[in-house]
Amino acid sequence: MKIYYATSISGEQTEDSEKTNTILIDYLKYFGEVLTEHFSNPEIKGKGETELSNKAIHDRDISWLLSADVIIAEVSNASLGVGYEIGRAVEHNKKILCLRKKSNNRLSAMISGCKKLTLKEYNTLGEAKKFNAEYLR
Amino acid sequence: MKIYYATSISGEQTEDSEKTNTILIDYLKYFGEVLTEHFSNPEIKGKGETELSNKAIHDRDISWLLSADVIIAEVSNASLGVGYEIGRAVEHNKKILCLRKKSNNRLSAMISGCKKLTLKEYNTLGEAKKFNAEYLR
Repeated sequence: MKIYYATSISGEQTEDSEKTNTILIDYLKYFGEVLTEHFSNPEIKGKGETELSNKAIHDRDISWLLSADVIIAEVSNASLGVGYEIGRAVEHNKKILCLRKKSNNRLSAMISGCKKLTLKEYNTLGEAKKFNAEYLR
Repeated sequence: MKIYYATSISGEQTEDSEKTNTILIDYLKYFGEVLTEHFSNPEIKGKGETELSNKAIHDRDISWLLSADVIIAEVSNASLGVGYEIGRAVEHNKKILCLRKKSNNRLSAMISGCKKLTLKEYNTLGEAKKFNAEYLR
């Protein structure tokens, strides 16, 4: 199974973001190949992959997205890139699980109101893992 | 001409966001019908339209997006909703102009590296208006 894990790179970040990405990506590897494994690398946070052009990053990531069997999107943080990937994946009828840390902030209605994806809100990373396992089995 | 103006509602906001949306939406009305005119209403910032379900908001906005002749997306702020709308619009080969206030923050490569949209960076709202006029004429 090919898994595309989507997370905020240039958008909002919290103190927990790096840990969340590392733990979830490591966990997802039990279920298949995580195409975007490097998203857990703290060096790309906020600045992206500086050795590649933006077009090269875009085209590679979209090629991975469209080849994936399932998209796992961490939507706790505002992010143009994660929203874009979800929008394109919806149009290709991909299986999409959105995970969000419970918060009083409003989640965009483009995500919470989209019936072509599954949205789960977690309190702990243990709960987030459980949602992944239930979805991927 | 039907224009879909996209902007951050639940995502990041700056002090300027409300003024930017009001001025750009008013300006766009010279060129056509702005389907999302209510996005300039400060009451929906951060909380959305509380009288509608998330599904109703999503389905109405996507229906507008897909009926629009052109998408003008304000991408100065991180936003899942704006990213999602751009992603879906790209798949429908819509004409898309992304406007961004010049900043040292990195813009997502999903936007800056996408060759199916036009990206313009402005210093002033006067410059943003000029980019709109050039694109829509």
